[in-house]
Amino acid sequence: MRVSIIGSGNVATHLSAALKNAGHHIIQVYSLNQQNAGLLAYHVKAEAISHIAQINADTDMFIIAAKDDAIESIAKQLASYQKLIVHTSGATAMDVILKYNLQAGILYPLQTFSKTRELDFKQVPLCIEGSTEDITIRLEQLAHTISKHVSRVNSSERKILHLAAVFACNFSNHLYAIAQVLLVENGLDFNLLKPLILETAQKVMESSPVKVQTGPAIRNDKKTMKAHLGLLDRHPPLQQLYEVLSQSIIKMGNGG
Amino acid sequence: MRVSIIGSGNVATHLSAALKNAGHHIIQVYSLNQQNAGLLAYHVKAEAISHIAQINADTDMFIIAAKDDAIESIAKQLASYQKLIVHTSGATAMDVILKYNLQAGILYPLQTFSKTRELDFKQVPLCIEGSTEDITIRLEQLAHTISKHVSRVNSSERKILHLAAVFACNFSNHLYAIAQVLLVENGLDFNLLKPLILETAQKVMESSPVKVQTGPAIRNDKKTMKAHLGLLDRHPPLQQLYEVLSQSIIKMGNGG
Repeated sequence: MRVSIIGSGNVATHLSAALKNAGHHIIQVYSLNQQNAGLLAYHVKAEAISHIAQINADTDMFIIAAKDDAIESIAKQLASYQKLIVHTSGATAMDVILKYNLQAGILYPLQTFSKTRELDFKQVPLCIEGSTEDITIRLEQLAHTISKHVSRVNSSERKILHLAAVFACNFSNHLYAIAQVLLVENGLDFNLLKPLILETAQKVMESSPVKVQTGPAIRNDKKTMKAHLGLLDRHPPLQQLYEVLSQSIIKMGNGG
Repeated sequence: MRVSIIGSGNVATHLSAALKNAGHHIIQVYSLNQQNAGLLAYHVKAEAISHIAQINADTDMFIIAAKDDAIESIAKQLASYQKLIVHTSGATAMDVILKYNLQAGILYPLQTFSKTRELDFKQVPLCIEGSTEDITIRLEQLAHTISKHVSRVNSSERKILHLAAVFACNFSNHLYAIAQVLLVENGLDFNLLKPLILETAQKVMESSPVKVQTGPAIRNDKKTMKAHLGLLDRHPPLQQLYEVLSQSIIKMGNGG
């Protein structure tokens, strides 16, 4: 397939590389950041452009991998080419494309990307939606060439997935950051905690998280929870966080 | 070394097996739960007992791997044998042994254990404390035979480590559980989220979590946060959790 990429950030970088490696042709990489566009275009043997006027219309689809806020205005500008326009956002409805362009779709990779971190794209779950059955099938076929995990997910389901990902991943990462702050301010090494962080994540690859919940809250161990709140007395916001999370664990129990 | 194990739960099981595999002799396994004691004793070729009166005094140390609340009373009962008594708890001070027995120590494995899940004990960080330098050295020597990661950690540092572990692990696991609830109640498969959970944990093996924070809060993306709160309108406690965690991320920023 002939694909044009709009954007040069983390998602654009990994998605372009995966498409290129699967034998597709990346026609152009468009980004307002000329340097990023040039670098990515070089890696995937595409043309780098930084003005909409330079768009090459000889493409099968435009994939917008840009900031959520920018998707709608880009879709509006690309609508005149009458090609399939796809975005990659978890939090953005298909409507923002559909109101300018009838051929619309989503290709949402449910993963966290960093440019400098290698990742096996075949393992990335890809959530697909199309404005017609024909488009959905075309996107599924494309997705199967780069990932082993392709699912149809509609816009309302995708919003829930994105919300769940914020809990499981963005918020978890923040808890790792809090742990690091607590260790560092007491002269302890964050490395001590790393095996436990990894094992906690690996455990839920096989077990339901609610069933493997451990710690003072699930035991309703009031003495330990009180001691922990005492240790946090210089961090009132962390005390609040500790209490809200512990109450939530107690409420959920081991049953779901 | 000749070691007696008090307890037959997750920590007792993995620690006994690691000690046995390293060539130490497990003399007895004591547990009020006769069946658990028998099973563990069978695996590590020890004698199973369920009455304190059956204790064999011909041992180098007692390792108490029991519930936090039970440690003190067990230590009190074992004091008459005048042997080294060690506990494995993150949240319990050495004092609870020391007030009955001068030879006291800690061997705290900073990991989450399940009986049915295999684990490379060599990778488990072991935090050591002894009531004398001589005891600390003996415990370090023992610890080095079963793990590659042995650190001296005093009682107040250990409390901080335990608190940090609650944030990074117990609370993270609860966030996975919340994500699962959100997916299941919308007919979505928790498996979709697993690669992202694992990658989020793997990322911080190499990068400082505060520097790789992603998501709507760190971007201060009010529109997405508001939409997420709307999706949670049937779960007021989760709305509160979402807000408290998002505010905490905004406050910490990318700088620490």
